[in-house]
Amino acid sequence: MPGKEVAVGIDIGGTNTIFGFADRGGNILAEDRLKTTHYEEVEVFVAALYEKILVTAKKISEPLDIKGFGIGAPMGNINKGTIEHAAGLPWKGIIPLADLFRKHTDLPVVVTNDANAAAVGEMIYGGAKDMKNFVVITLGTGLGSGFVIDGKLVYGHDGFAGEIGHTAIRPGPSNRDCGCGRKGCLETYVSATGLKRTLLKIMADSIEPSDLRKYSFEELDAEIIHDYAKKGDHLAIRAFQHTGRMLGFKLADVVAHTNPEAIFLFGGLALAKDLIFEPAKEYMEENLLSIYKGKVKLLASQLSTQNAAVLGASSLIWTNEIK
Amino acid sequence: MPGKEVAVGIDIGGTNTIFGFADRGGNILAEDRLKTTHYEEVEVFVAALYEKILVTAKKISEPLDIKGFGIGAPMGNINKGTIEHAAGLPWKGIIPLADLFRKHTDLPVVVTNDANAAAVGEMIYGGAKDMKNFVVITLGTGLGSGFVIDGKLVYGHDGFAGEIGHTAIRPGPSNRDCGCGRKGCLETYVSATGLKRTLLKIMADSIEPSDLRKYSFEELDAEIIHDYAKKGDHLAIRAFQHTGRMLGFKLADVVAHTNPEAIFLFGGLALAKDLIFEPAKEYMEENLLSIYKGKVKLLASQLSTQNAAVLGASSLIWTNEIK
Repeated sequence: MPGKEVAVGIDIGGTNTIFGFADRGGNILAEDRLKTTHYEEVEVFVAALYEKILVTAKKISEPLDIKGFGIGAPMGNINKGTIEHAAGLPWKGIIPLADLFRKHTDLPVVVTNDANAAAVGEMIYGGAKDMKNFVVITLGTGLGSGFVIDGKLVYGHDGFAGEIGHTAIRPGPSNRDCGCGRKGCLETYVSATGLKRTLLKIMADSIEPSDLRKYSFEELDAEIIHDYAKKGDHLAIRAFQHTGRMLGFKLADVVAHTNPEAIFLFGGLALAKDLIFEPAKEYMEENLLSIYKGKVKLLASQLSTQNAAVLGASSLIWTNEIK
Repeated sequence: MPGKEVAVGIDIGGTNTIFGFADRGGNILAEDRLKTTHYEEVEVFVAALYEKILVTAKKISEPLDIKGFGIGAPMGNINKGTIEHAAGLPWKGIIPLADLFRKHTDLPVVVTNDANAAAVGEMIYGGAKDMKNFVVITLGTGLGSGFVIDGKLVYGHDGFAGEIGHTAIRPGPSNRDCGCGRKGCLETYVSATGLKRTLLKIMADSIEPSDLRKYSFEELDAEIIHDYAKKGDHLAIRAFQHTGRMLGFKLADVVAHTNPEAIFLFGGLALAKDLIFEPAKEYMEENLLSIYKGKVKLLASQLSTQNAAVLGASSLIWTNEIK
């Protein structure tokens, strides 16, 4: 008996690696995770991940016909199956991830940028089903981007298209260090970490009291700042406004490059809704050339954050995006 | 007798409109021009242009089989056949250019952005013959851009992809007014006009003597500044350096969007060679994420400036880019 056709979707993040079994309809049959940070050696990580995938598969009551492994990771390269110089992961340099996986399996293994995976997921299962030209921005610890043009994901000549998180906010040395080794990158402003940094800057410049002053940088996260903003904390609100404006400024650039129908925001920061969408939309429109004004939709991803990354990664196996 | 198959390529610029008859091999059989600025009414302009095309056709010794009219113009829209809000042209608002042309002919008329036309020309006849992913930047009175991804020109959802001349150099109100009504656009720095503005700024800030101080803003042009730079004039050299750096800074953004194999510079400023290429290359590399460093070629267009625009526009008729 052949079993139910599924693809394994894997999302490798700086903190957790999440995987799941998805069918062609985008239904997740099972999902589990392991801590990325627990594994200093990538070979040990891959072996542990593969083992856990097998264990999870056995728990599913119906027999499975696994068609392949789709992996989304920061700096994932679809041409080479590698992760290259990903600042947020424990493994440095060029990691031959697909090859390491193939030591365990003969099934297809596809590696791509996590934001590219999210864009494919949005196209197949989310809000971009009827769109040919759109962009997905993932807002997590960092900022990723995936571009779809004429219904196809853009990989670029070297397989690294869509890294707008590492475009600089202004020319010359800026004041914020980026994990990539440079300064002033968009993701140092627009990401969960960027939001925290902006809040600290605002607390430094302002004398206004706020309960947020009780938190250390390490204790803070986007959710805490979001909670305070909802309660009316001025510093938290200003941090979101500044973050949204920096995002909107750069989204105007995105529009001038590829003229998308819509830009989807995905991930933790996007859950703050109007707090991030309103300033982003306002500043994007303010910076748009007249021919674009009022035409580009700024939308929330229609994939739930819980399994969107897994869905997106699994969908790499179903699409003809595979190279 | 059917005659030689040709397409009429038309390049509508802020000062001149150039047209020519090109065969499929990219040979120009004849070329002529008229002053764009002489025509306040676009209907009169189109009638005069069409008349002049017919007159020029008659001067060609062999019989012609005209297959269509390809038109490149600032803010040209391929979907609608319009020119929309082009700051550098005498006609304001939305101009139904293709429809106006069709009053004179039943042949196909294709209108697109002039930089898009240049990109198609580079792909068919120029240095991008073997490339699938590249960008063309046109440096004239303004700055245009055309993106090719997977061998196809990117038009975007509304037909207006590739207007990076109107992305801002930094967030917030900047000091240079742009013809588009906003402030601080890339083309206010990187274009023949931008070069002049930068030279004036440098002359204002510096006390160094220079023969360029004898010229009025109106008398100055990129060629004069180029000549002085070649003679070693420090202010002229600094103006080129600053222009190249601003370009390089934004080219790093372009790479982070679509990861092209090469970026071609085309037009008057590109003729200044090392004076513009060296600072642009240096600043692009400095601002690139490590995964892109040393990989993206910055090249001069291999189309001669004299007829590249005409070739590019004519090639719209030969390609399946026509919508």
